[in-house]
Parts: sequence; C-alpha cells; structure tokens
Amino acid sequence: MDTTVFEAHESEIRGYCRNYPTVFASASNARQVDEDGRSFIDFFAGAGVLNFGHNNPRMKEALIDFIQADGITHSLDTYTTTKRDFVSRFHEVVLAPRGMDHRMQFMGPTGSNAVEAAMKLARKATGRRQIVAFSHGFHGMTLGSLAATANDAFRQWSGVPLENIHRLPFETAPGGDTALAEYREALADPSSGLLAPAAFLIEPIQAEGGVNVASKEWLHEVQDLAREVGALVIFDDIQAGIGRTGSYFSFDGMGLDPDIITLAKGLGGFGTPIAMNLNKPEIDDHWSPGAHTGTFRGPGLSFVAGVVALDYFTDDSFLDDVRAKGERLRERLVKIVEANPDRGWEVRGRGMIQALDTGDGAFAKRVQKEAFDAGLLIGPCGSGGRVIKLIPPLTIPEGDLTEGLDLLEQAIDAATRAL
Amino acid sequence: MDTTVFEAHESEIRGYCRNYPTVFASASNARQVDEDGRSFIDFFAGAGVLNFGHNNPRMKEALIDFIQADGITHSLDTYTTTKRDFVSRFHEVVLAPRGMDHRMQFMGPTGSNAVEAAMKLARKATGRRQIVAFSHGFHGMTLGSLAATANDAFRQWSGVPLENIHRLPFETAPGGDTALAEYREALADPSSGLLAPAAFLIEPIQAEGGVNVASKEWLHEVQDLAREVGALVIFDDIQAGIGRTGSYFSFDGMGLDPDIITLAKGLGGFGTPIAMNLNKPEIDDHWSPGAHTGTFRGPGLSFVAGVVALDYFTDDSFLDDVRAKGERLRERLVKIVEANPDRGWEVRGRGMIQALDTGDGAFAKRVQKEAFDAGLLIGPCGSGGRVIKLIPPLTIPEGDLTEGLDLLEQAIDAATRAL
Amino acid sequence: MDTTVFEAHESEIRGYCRNYPTVFASASNARQVDEDGRSFIDFFAGAGVLNFGHNNPRMKEALIDFIQADGITHSLDTYTTTKRDFVSRFHEVVLAPRGMDHRMQFMGPTGSNAVEAAMKLARKATGRRQIVAFSHGFHGMTLGSLAATANDAFRQWSGVPLENIHRLPFETAPGGDTALAEYREALADPSSGLLAPAAFLIEPIQAEGGVNVASKEWLHEVQDLAREVGALVIFDDIQAGIGRTGSYFSFDGMGLDPDIITLAKGLGGFGTPIAMNLNKPEIDDHWSPGAHTGTFRGPGLSFVAGVVALDYFTDDSFLDDVRAKGERLRERLVKIVEANPDRGWEVRGRGMIQALDTGDGAFAKRVQKEAFDAGLLIGPCGSGGRVIKLIPPLTIPEGDLTEGLDLLEQAIDAATRAL
Amino acid sequence: MDTTVFEAHESEIRGYCRNYPTVFASASNARQVDEDGRSFIDFFAGAGVLNFGHNNPRMKEALIDFIQADGITHSLDTYTTTKRDFVSRFHEVVLAPRGMDHRMQFMGPTGSNAVEAAMKLARKATGRRQIVAFSHGFHGMTLGSLAATANDAFRQWSGVPLENIHRLPFETAPGGDTALAEYREALADPSSGLLAPAAFLIEPIQAEGGVNVASKEWLHEVQDLAREVGALVIFDDIQAGIGRTGSYFSFDGMGLDPDIITLAKGLGGFGTPIAMNLNKPEIDDHWSPGAHTGTFRGPGLSFVAGVVALDYFTDDSFLDDVRAKGERLRERLVKIVEANPDRGWEVRGRGMIQALDTGDGAFAKRVQKEAFDAGLLIGPCGSGGRVIKLIPPLTIPEGDLTEGLDLLEQAIDAATRAL
Repeated sequence: MDTTVFEAHESEIRGYCRNYPTVFASASNARQVDEDGRSFIDFFAGAGVLNFGHNNPRMKEALIDFIQADGITHSLDTYTTTKRDFVSRFHEVVLAPRGMDHRMQFMGPTGSNAVEAAMKLARKATGRRQIVAFSHGFHGMTLGSLAATANDAFRQWSGVPLENIHRLPFETAPGGDTALAEYREALADPSSGLLAPAAFLIEPIQAEGGVNVASKEWLHEVQDLAREVGALVIFDDIQAGIGRTGSYFSFDGMGLDPDIITLAKGLGGFGTPIAMNLNKPEIDDHWSPGAHTGTFRGPGLSFVAGVVALDYFTDDSFLDDVRAKGERLRERLVKIVEANPDRGWEVRGRGMIQALDTGDGAFAKRVQKEAFDAGLLIGPCGSGGRVIKLIPPLTIPEGDLTEGLDLLEQAIDAATRAL
Repeated sequence: MDTTVFEAHESEIRGYCRNYPTVFASASNARQVDEDGRSFIDFFAGAGVLNFGHNNPRMKEALIDFIQADGITHSLDTYTTTKRDFVSRFHEVVLAPRGMDHRMQFMGPTGSNAVEAAMKLARKATGRRQIVAFSHGFHGMTLGSLAATANDAFRQWSGVPLENIHRLPFETAPGGDTALAEYREALADPSSGLLAPAAFLIEPIQAEGGVNVASKEWLHEVQDLAREVGALVIFDDIQAGIGRTGSYFSFDGMGLDPDIITLAKGLGGFGTPIAMNLNKPEIDDHWSPGAHTGTFRGPGLSFVAGVVALDYFTDDSFLDDVRAKGERLRERLVKIVEANPDRGWEVRGRGMIQALDTGDGAFAKRVQKEAFDAGLLIGPCGSGGRVIKLIPPLTIPEGDLTEGLDLLEQAIDAATRAL
Repeated sequence: MDTTVFEAHESEIRGYCRNYPTVFASASNARQVDEDGRSFIDFFAGAGVLNFGHNNPRMKEALIDFIQADGITHSLDTYTTTKRDFVSRFHEVVLAPRGMDHRMQFMGPTGSNAVEAAMKLARKATGRRQIVAFSHGFHGMTLGSLAATANDAFRQWSGVPLENIHRLPFETAPGGDTALAEYREALADPSSGLLAPAAFLIEPIQAEGGVNVASKEWLHEVQDLAREVGALVIFDDIQAGIGRTGSYFSFDGMGLDPDIITLAKGLGGFGTPIAMNLNKPEIDDHWSPGAHTGTFRGPGLSFVAGVVALDYFTDDSFLDDVRAKGERLRERLVKIVEANPDRGWEVRGRGMIQALDTGDGAFAKRVQKEAFDAGLLIGPCGSGGRVIKLIPPLTIPEGDLTEGLDLLEQAIDAATRAL
Repeated sequence: MDTTVFEAHESEIRGYCRNYPTVFASASNARQVDEDGRSFIDFFAGAGVLNFGHNNPRMKEALIDFIQADGITHSLDTYTTTKRDFVSRFHEVVLAPRGMDHRMQFMGPTGSNAVEAAMKLARKATGRRQIVAFSHGFHGMTLGSLAATANDAFRQWSGVPLENIHRLPFETAPGGDTALAEYREALADPSSGLLAPAAFLIEPIQAEGGVNVASKEWLHEVQDLAREVGALVIFDDIQAGIGRTGSYFSFDGMGLDPDIITLAKGLGGFGTPIAMNLNKPEIDDHWSPGAHTGTFRGPGLSFVAGVVALDYFTDDSFLDDVRAKGERLRERLVKIVEANPDRGWEVRGRGMIQALDTGDGAFAKRVQKEAFDAGLLIGPCGSGGRVIKLIPPLTIPEGDLTEGLDLLEQAIDAATRAL
C-alpha cells in the first residue's frame, strides 16, 4: 500500500481515506479489495450510491456495449437515444404506476445541484424567498444548499452568512412534535416577524443527519401546512430513494404528493454521476429554457446504467428482498442494543438503511476503526458522528450480509472493551 | 426522429435540444450522428468538454479494460489505485514541469462546485467575505458561484439576493482599462466604502461570456493587486484549460502564479464528469478533512480517461497541432470579417477557442440554425448570444475542420442574406 | 379647523392625524385643546412620552430659565454643565439605589437609534451576528431595529431582506411557553442549523405589540439562557420604562440584571427628544470613541427637563400614586370585560399601561373614533390594532382619569351598538 | 472644571468631549463659554446644526412664548397649529419660490432616520433593492444609512454585512471622472452583473467626508443617468443645506430636480432636533399612512424655532452676508495655503462651509488641539480626520470671524512648528 502520492499531492481536505487507510484496487457487489488483496465487506456503498453493488454485471455489459457502439457519453441537454431510453423507462417504471406526471429535470450531477435547482424553482414559482429546512438536514455544500444543511461542521465553512432559510426542528428533534403547529400559528400572525415560505425542504429519512425517520403523519402535517400557506413541498430523496428503504421512493405508500423530488446518488446505478429533479408540470412551467444550466447534464453512461437499474423495479422480488434484508439488519441491531442495556442506544431506519445511535461520536469512530481492521466498511453519521449507519448494496449476498453483521458485532464489542 | 418522450416528460428547462432539434445516436471524434443517420461536424464539443473527441479510441479501450477488471468506479475520496494513477500522472505531466506544488482537491464533479470550493477556501484563508468577480464572467449556477456569474439571464433565477461579490469590469469591457487602478486606490482609501477582498476570481479567457481574452499584462495587474491587498488569485480555467488554447493552462507562459486553479470539463477526457481545484499548499492547509464534502468526488471512469488525456501532453506535437488548427480557425474567421466589412464584427480567441462577435444575438442565432441545417454544430455565447464560438475537439481531423469552416461560412452568408 | 396646508404639503405617510382629525393648539397635563377650543382628555400621552403631562409646570420653569440663561441647547457629546447635572442625577436617583454601575450612552434621540446602538454593541462584544428578537416586538423603523420589529405592517416597507435576527415567540404568543427550552436544546445541538446569538432583545412589556406582559419567571429564563450561551440581555424599556409601570424600570423588583437597557420617550420629560442606553461597564468597554456617532446626542432641553423628571422618583409618593391609578384603570377595564362576556376580551398591563384586547381591529378602531368624538384620545395597538391601550400621563388628575374612563366606557358601548 | 461624573458614568463611546476637554456652561451666537468663564469662538456650530448661532435671540423669545402658552411640544404626527405654521411657512419661503411641489415628511429627528426613510421610499417606488452611494459619503449610523456611509471607521461597527448599496467614487475621488459613464455602460450590459438601482443617494457637498464639492455638471450627469435608468435622485442636504453654502439648498441655482431631499441639523434652528424629507408627490404617493413611524416626529420646539429660521431667507441680505463671509473664510485659507507651499494643501468649500485639506490626520488633530487651547473650536473631518472644516454659525459677527481666523492661522503655525 503506497499512499505517498496522495499525501504529497492531494488536498488536506481528503476525508474518507483517513477512515479507510488503504488503497482499493477493485470491487464487486458488496466487496472491495485493496491492492494488497485484502477483501472488505461494504456496508457503506459509496455513501448510498451503489444500491446495485459495485460493478453490477448487467450494467457492466450494458456500459461496455454502449462504449463500443460509440454512444453519446456527454450530451449536455441535447436529445440522445440513450437519454430517451432513460426518460421513457423512468416514466414507465416509476412515474406512470404511481400516477405521477412530474417532469424530469437534469442538472449538474450532484445532489447539491439538484437541491439548488429545486430551491430556485420554488422561489420562482411562489415569488417568495425563504425556504423551510429542518434541523439535522443535509442537502449539499454549495451556498444555496449549504444554507439548508443544518450541520454546523459544514456550515462554518461558508465564509459568508447563510440566509433565506427558516429552520424548524425535524420531527424527531427536540421541539419537533410542536414545531409545525407553532409555525402555522406564527404564519397566521401578522406580528410574528416571519415571512411566508416558498417551500418546505425535507428528507423523509435524514440519512447524513443520523438516520432520522419521519412518520407518515408528520410528513402529511408538513404537506398540509405547505398547501395551507401556499408553499411547495420538496422531498430530498437523494440518499434514501431508489429502493433503499424497500420501496422506490422513501415515502412510497404514504399518500404524499410532493411538488418537487430531488434524486441523485443511486439513480445512475453504477456510481456514474447523475442528478434529476421531478417537478410537477404546473411548477415546472415556471422554468425558462436554460435557466439553470450546467455542463454534465446529459451523462450517457449514467443513463445506460440507470436504465438497467430501473429493471430491478419491474417486479416485486427485488424490493421484497430489500425489505427482508432490512429486517435482518434491524433485528441484529436490536439484539446488539439488547445486549448492551444501560447504554441508551437506539436503532432507527427503514428497509436497508438501518442505524445504531450510540450517542457517542468517539465510540462510533472506534467501532468504525475496529470494523475496518476486521474487514468491514461502515460510515458514522449524525451529530458528532455518533450514529453507525448501515447501507450495504441492496444486492448484497446473504453470506456477506451475515458476515458483515458478525464483524460489526465484534467491532462493537471490541470498542466497548476499549472504553 | 421521435422527441415526444422528451416533450412529454422532460422539464421545460431543457435548452440545447431546442437549438439542435434532433436525436443523436452516436459520435466519434468530431462527428455526431443522429438516429436518422445524419452526420454533424461538432464545433461545440459538449461546451468545451470533449477536447479529445467523442469516444476517443484510446480512452474507450482504457475504460472497457477498467470496467472489465472491476475497477472502482465510485470511491468518494477513499484511495484507489486508479485515483493514484491520475494524481501521480497529473503531477508528473502538468505540475512538476511547471514547478508547481499545488495540491489537488476533488469535489462534486461540476465546475460550479469547483468554484464554490475555491470561494470557501479563499474566504477561510483570508478571513474576508468579498470576492472580486468580473463582468461577463461565468462561474456556475449554484448560489455561491452564481453570485460570481455576471449574466443577468442566469442571475435573475436566484430568487434571493446574490451578495458578497465585488464586481469589476473585465479587461475588455467598458472601463476595464482603468478599473483595477481605481479599485487599488479605493481599497487604499478608508472612506471608499469597500471591503478588502478575499480573492480575485478570473477566467483568463472568458468562454461563455463571449470569448474575451485577457492580456498577460492585465492578468499580472490583477495578480499584483491581489498580492498587494492580501487577496488570493483564483483562475477559473474550466472551459479554457486542458489544452484548449494551445497550452495546458490557458495562462501558461505568462509567468503567472495563481493561488487556486479550478478545472473540470475536459479534465475527465471522455465527457466523464470530474472537477478538481489546484490549491497552493499554504492555502490548502486551511482546509480541514471533509470540510467541503460531496458524493461523486472519486469518479473512477474519469480518472481512467483523464490519465489517457494527460498522455496527449507528454510531448509537444499535440499542442503544436492545436495551435496550428487554432490559427486556421482564426484565419478563416478573419477572412469572414474582411468579407463583411461595415458589420463591425470582431474575431477573438486563442488556440482552438476562436470566436466571431457579430454584435447581434438574433443574427448569431440564425447562423447557428443555418449551420445546424447544413450539418454543423456551433453554440452562440456572450451577452444575448451574439458571439459565435468555435471550440471543436482538439483532435478534429483536418478534413472535418475545413468542412466545418466551409459550412460556417455558408451559414453566415445564408443568415446575412436573410437579414 | 384648517387642515388644507397639511393635505397640500405634508406627506401621505402622516398617520395619527387621521385618527384625531383636528388641529391641536395647546396642552396641559392630561388635556389637549384644539384650535376651536375643544378639550380632549389624553389617554395616549404622545405614545408614552408624556409621563409627566403636557407642559409640566416645573419643567416649563426650568426650561425657560435655561433658555434665558443661554444654556447649551445643542452640544453633540461635548461636556456641558447641563449634561453633567443629568448624568449625575440619573446616577444618583436611578442607578446608585439599584446598585447598578451601567454607563450612560447617548445617541441620536430616537428609540430606534438606541436599539441600533445596543445591537452593534452586543455584536461587537460577542463577535456574533444574530440577535434573538420576539414575536410582537417593536424596536424601531431603521433597518437594524426594523429587522428586530415583528409587525409585518412595518417590515414590508424595508425594501430589502431583514436579516441577522432569530425570531422566537414572546412568552404570551403561541409556542411561547416552550420556545426557550427548545431553543436551548437547539443551540446545544451542532446540527440544529442555528447560530449562537449575540443577544436577546426583549421588551419586558411589549407596548406597541399589544401590551403583552412578560412574567418575572420567563424573563429570568431568558436571562439564564443568555448567560448560558454567552449572549447578552438587552431590555428595551423605551415605552414601558420611566415610571410607567409603577416602578422606574418596568422590570424593577424582579432581580433581573440586563447587560444593556435602552431608554428614550419619557426620559426627556417634556416631550423633548433624547435616547440613552445603559451599558454594563465590561460591555461598554468594547466601544471606541465616536463609534456610533450622531448629531443630536447632547440635547440640552431634554437634559434640563429630564432632571426635573428624575425628581419625581426621589420619594415613593409618585410611584405609589401611579400604581394606585393603574389599579383604577385596570379595575375599570375588568368591569368593562365583565359587562361584555362572550366577547373574549382580555385586560392586560401593569401600572399605568393597561389595555383591553378586543380581538378585533375594526372594533377597536371604532372605539377610538367614538372616543375621539366624545373628547378622549386613545391609541389602538397590537396586531391589526385590536388592542386599546391606555397610557395617560402618570400625572393625570383624578378627575380626568375618571372622566376619561367614563368616556371610554361610553365609546365601547357605542361601538358595540354599532356592530 | 469637573469631568469626573462623565468619566465615571458616561460611556466610553463619548468622543467630541475628548477634543474639547472642558465643560461648557453657556453659549451665544458664535461663542461658547465654559464653566470657568473661558470663551471659545465656535467654528464648528454643533457639526453644522447652529446655522443661526447659539441661543439665537429671536428664537429664544419665540420658544419662551411658546412654552409659556402651553404650546404642543410633542405631537407625533397629529396636526398642531405650530406644525401648520412650519409647514405653511416652509412652503411659502422655500418651496413655492422654487416652483417645487415636494411634500414634507417628518420622521424621527435624526439625519440617519431621514436617509432611512428616503431609502425605503426609493425602494418601494421602484421595486428595486440597490441604492447607489458614493465614496466618502456620510449618511448616518443606523444599519440602512450606515450601509450608504463610506467611512470604514464607522462601517466596521455594524457587526453584520452592509448590503444593498452599489458604491461609486464621488466626483472628486479617484475614478470619479469616469465612474458614471462606466456605470451607465455597465447597466446597459446584461452581463455586467449589476442590478438596476433604486436611487442615487448624493450629498452635493460631502461635509463629513472632507468637504468635497460636486460640480453642477457632475450632479446633472448623476441626475441624467438616474432618469435614464429609472432610478430616483436623493440629495442628502443635511449638513450643507439651510443656508450653509450661501443658498437655501446647497444645490440651488443649478437647475437640478431631485426626487427626494433629506434635511435635518439646521432645520430646527435652535439645535432643537428635527428631520424632514421633501418627496415629489408622485413618489410620495407610494407611502401608506404610518409606514415609517416614530415617536419624535412632531417636535413643537423645533417647529417654533424653525419658523424663525425661515424668516432669515425672506430677503437676500442674509444669504448675501453668508456668501461674503464665506469668501473671507476662503480667502484666508487660500492665504494660509500660499504661506505653506510644498505642503500640498488644498482649500475646498462653498459659502460658509470651507475647508483646508492638510492631507495629514495627525497634523490636523494637532491644529485642532492648538486651536482649542487658544480658544477656537474646530472639527477635523475626512479620511483619517485630515481636513480642517470651518462651519461657523452663519450669523457669526465679523469680529469673531476675524479673530477665529487669526486663531486658526496661529494654530496652524504652532502645529507646523511642532512637526
């Protein structure tokens, strides 16, 4: 393992490499192998990107065919046959069955860019400035999305005031049970000092923020309030969407009707970058051509792999399996909590995003280190990194899942012994 | 050609597809072919991304090998052998020969994100808020970079005030000859009402802004002023870098010494998304790990193709050829101007970014349409789209270059006749 | 009565004159007489300025002596004997008995200016930006103080975003019971998205906001929280201070210890403009000479009358009388409420600021009109003007107080009949 | 002289008292006398307030009569006979002869408040945010007006970003000759990155900024540009108006036509606080009643003395005298400059605001100190306090004027010797 090149020439800002101190050389499904031949089970999936595993074989084949056929890899937002396949297939597999007529908007291939575009559109459509965002929310690093991101560890780097956001506690945060009702009353009061908002920007499941799961009831309360005050509902489903929770969208089956949905991460299937917003037509009509432009908006490789990814959602078996595996993850975490009473630990999640809140960032970091040493990749999240989040590829084999959970349990034990 | 899928399901915001009303199916070097088999010469290169042509054969081979070998496509900022190759090779080919010790920072793969990161770093390193940006500058669409972007057609979509930028005219804009001297005096005056800036953010060649070329002298004046007032120099070389002007950086050979350089577009070689900043070590040291995070910061495919792209710069022949072709582009445009005296047209550019400023957006649009109909792809830029920018792949064959220029000349004639 | 001059030459913005459609010619204690000789009982006292009555005879004499002696009417912040008398007397009568060592800061003679100065000082002293202000708060019309003012009827006129304020509900507003506790938890949470505040800016009794009276317990909770998070406590006692509530400060006797107190309105005694902040020495030390300058900071006439005003507080009889009259005001309002059950009316206040919340702005306006027609001046306040506020001069004779209350009761009856 | 009370109990922010270390006891016309009986000639006039001298005898009499007659000292913006006299007289003496139909708006009695109101109105009337303000401009200390103030010594105290101002160099500042032309071009350029402004806020003579005198031509250029781009012209005549320059307004006789004029300082005549804007009717119509409220908007004493002040402008003799005395001030300063060649000193001013720019703040401070010690009050201004500004009462007797100039010359000599 030779990391001197990175140490000499890469920016001090590099982060994950410090948690996983090795040089990875190849990967397949839920396994990553470093250049010394050591194999790791991947419970992190590239921060929730690799829902269909590393180097998904069906996607590999499609990509190689596409490259060999001189497909259009980079198209801005010109029309290509590849993009048409993606748009058409997405409509067929995702939108049509749900009776959704949202339009697909492509932008620079980062979740942050998707959120920025959604914020612009909401502000334009309503003529209002402020967007309601929630404590523990994570929406990106660019100035617009960073203003919506709650974590001070990121916010402090802006160098300028982050404005035009009204912050409310998330359902599961202190005050979250009453915040919406109080905000409703305040908006009705002409002396509250508050502006009518353009939109509510919510992650139905806050992933980076610590795997905080909003209830159906609370999401409806948000939506009702938004409708009441003339604001839009934007669901940021960037990490929790694309099958992660056992349904395509994290909020499927709740009877919700968001105006804008932001997607990225897993949408390109293969780790190939893409971002896409779904805008209701009457909202989308506020855009003018080219209003939010960008270079990599027509990523051919992402469209190709993304079409393969959509195939997974054409029958129930895939999501049934995700839910079943999610249940196994959860059960194991619950057992771990039960084996460690008095620690105040909590298990949270839905489908294959499950988490153990240890309430202690230093402890979680130690668990992560022990796990790495034992051959398991996990990523802490939440305030101070105290939450151990498990987001393996949805396609992880049973054996790797079990082995990974065994390694996790051992790592937790080791970290506990080290206290 | 069937575009109904797009019309039904894609956002109203789609733009370039309106200029090029067809569905592209494949592409090779400087040719794009639509699904009806019609071949177009590409003088636009995906907005300056495809410097090495569509589907560059050396890159295709490298990408297919990589995919077949289960290389790491998506790695966040963990270490991979592929990333090490890229970092090492970039240092060897670009930095070392120039005596540069800048560090490479990877972020979400958009130029906008690169600019946002550079702005954060400059603000952090100086403890100041305001960044000097220039009229006609284009730096991206997210709130931070959009504040630096000058074009009102983009700015008006922010929905919130765009702050923390001090705007100066670019060298070639009205007042550009005296602006720096006046700004220097104002900064020295405690009653000027101006803040000391964190940085000067400059495109040495403004591409989207109308192919405005800064002189060596002016860039030195900017750099000198920045040093004098304790501000950083950020060169945004996203469109004009990576060989486009006949040298690797657009400002090579001028004796300049920027603190931060933003790169994206052509860096990934194949149209594969990537963005990278080069930060001087003493500036870069202000970052903490993970301060500006993001998902698609470790794009394996871009690293692989990017390494192949770097090979083009290992001897002089490639850039010699770029300069020679650039000269042909320029000569032809000069001839066109000479054939149309009294129009006030102007030719601007360097290397293989050359432009004809027609002073008339409607006329340029007509030229673009006539060119498309004749089989040539070009993209207007500048205020109101009045500048016809020619940025073919640097690898364009002689024959295509000549044919493209012939088609352009015919399109201009046709548009002139239609006046 | 001739108002044509006003209608022809005064701005459309004029307001109170529309409520009181006559031309006043003279005034004495709690009586104003218009140019037609009609006498009005004044329950408004110039919006709480004339605590010692119109043309207080002791002040008249002092002012005339001062003018005849060529005293210094206008001194900026140079030292004058007159100012020394005021400073010395204020210390002796107000500060010393309370063990307060706050320093007196003079600024442009408006409450708004006092608040702006307090906000600057708090931001400087803490190095923080955000100031917590409360729903229904009124702090002034200039951009800094207006940002803290809650009423949208005023805020909408800013023409620019009003920033750098964190808004919480006042104790008596919806959510006011839990807001401080939730805010404490949020500030302790690094992912709340909230900044640590520079100060809490509170009116212990919100006058313009509808005579909302904070409890001692809540004010302590604010103060405790401020101490805990390193923020200052600023009490805006501009309307409720200077004896209005039956004590010099509205928060006397509660064991509170504000860092900054803003005063204006009644401080000059005679309606002569003045504003003054009281800053704790360790906070005040953050000022540099001339940091917040202004022209009318040394108002000789206000100092002279202000010294006379201070005499009222040298024994207990004056404030005893204020409390007794306040009790009469209150009892009468309670009787009115009891005579009108089913209306949901509420009586609020302390000392001689008492109010009837009718819950209905149109009704309160009608009452005000009926009262005016009958010879009583009152001023509605609160959201939509629904609260009838009674703030007669503290020196009002018993007879006028009784007669005024009779007129009020009749006006309420008349307005009720008109429903 | 006893200043211990101030040192013990007044804020550290006190400023002028440090320049004039004595305690003043009385004053008459251009003389101030301290408590030890020492008489000072006043060339500062309370920062330009006391145009009609300290304790103007005609005003004294009127004020005493008014107080004895129980006039309305404090009226908010209700109608009073006193206010009607003022409004009527101001129209008759100032507006009507100039054919002006501006409406008078009263607000909190500070110049800062006048500027804040003007900015609000301009923003409301145009629906735009940015206001053009000039280098070296001084417009007040509250957040809105402070944003327009150029001097960093004041701006640094805001504690928050000062936004929504576009800064241009004043005519006499570096770049001032070309700035308007360049700004015009920039506004016409959709890629300049600049917003269309709501207004141009200009002091025709910058007093605090260093007595910088705009030419008629430049002011017309400002006005023309404003008209061209749909912006308002706001003249801040707070210090230079009310006769100071030898005409009522500082810009009289230039054929200018401002939309809003801000007045304060000398308007109340006696040092009695007042502020007033003059708004063109079609602009003023954008106000709603009570939109910019405030307590001390109806200052009876200021109206009374202000009416007397207006009498000075009913025939030519007063202003003839002002111009003659101004000429004497100027000649003497010119002589001083000529006696000190090689110092690079400059004389600037108009009428009885004349200044010597010494280019050296420390030197000017020494001159001020020497002058004080010799019995003359002067006030440095401009960047770093390098400009000695002479603004005696317009009513100063010849003898005091001559004696004051003698003292000034001696002080300059003394300061020169001390170099």
